[in-house]
Amino acid sequence: MKGDHQWTIEVDVDKTISEADAEEYQGLVIPGGVLNPDALRKNDDAIAFVKAFFEAGKPVAAICHGPQVLITAEVVESRKLTSTKTIKIDLLNAGAEWYDKEVVVDQGLVTSRSPDDLPAFNDKMVEEFAEGVHQGLTY
Amino acid sequence: MKGDHQWTIEVDVDKTISEADAEEYQGLVIPGGVLNPDALRKNDDAIAFVKAFFEAGKPVAAICHGPQVLITAEVVESRKLTSTKTIKIDLLNAGAEWYDKEVVVDQGLVTSRSPDDLPAFNDKMVEEFAEGVHQGLTY
Repeated sequence: MKGDHQWTIEVDVDKTISEADAEEYQGLVIPGGVLNPDALRKNDDAIAFVKAFFEAGKPVAAICHGPQVLITAEVVESRKLTSTKTIKIDLLNAGAEWYDKEVVVDQGLVTSRSPDDLPAFNDKMVEEFAEGVHQGLTY
Repeated sequence: MKGDHQWTIEVDVDKTISEADAEEYQGLVIPGGVLNPDALRKNDDAIAFVKAFFEAGKPVAAICHGPQVLITAEVVESRKLTSTKTIKIDLLNAGAEWYDKEVVVDQGLVTSRSPDDLPAFNDKMVEEFAEGVHQGLTY
């Protein structure tokens, strides 16, 4: 699989989304890029997968354009979050509370704006994932 | 300038958006692609340029992801339109009326879903642009 970022790397895919069971995972990270979230939005299995994490109260992290997927999963209403600037209006229209901060954490939902925010994003993501495990949300 | 579509072509740019005056144009076409509309959304000059066509009642055509730009320009509320499927929810959240049709025309606004709709899109676009000229909307 090839990313659409300027640093193109190839990674082996463990499972396709239709083979993966949300119950077997402790948390979900939705990366950005302009092309990737748009591809996920049109994949019904991917949207159902995302919804399952919110229904189970498991931590979810999304960065840059990643929160577009959360709009399609209809899980952003009244949630505090951030994103890349271009989709701010889409998140506000979907009922989210949008903040211009390097990282926003709201009940297990961790979001950031851009690759520059990655250190803060990663720190908070690890905190929330550890908290999820602590609360017994692990499988 | 290079497009992000699979058929990459290069075209000469007559004017950059900051050099262009909306008053000098009879109509506006916003092409799709995933990357292009996202780039336009973050360009304040592009958004002001789009708004000027709506304020003047001039015809505007947008296809695929092109209508994302119309959301940022805040001109879609109560407008009948279509788009690529992934941004349907963003257009609905912005107050638009979304239809699954090859082309939708609403008071000079012409929209289509995908490259497959191009023949219908082009026909209606030309009709609306001709109508605009007929109504004296030309410079």
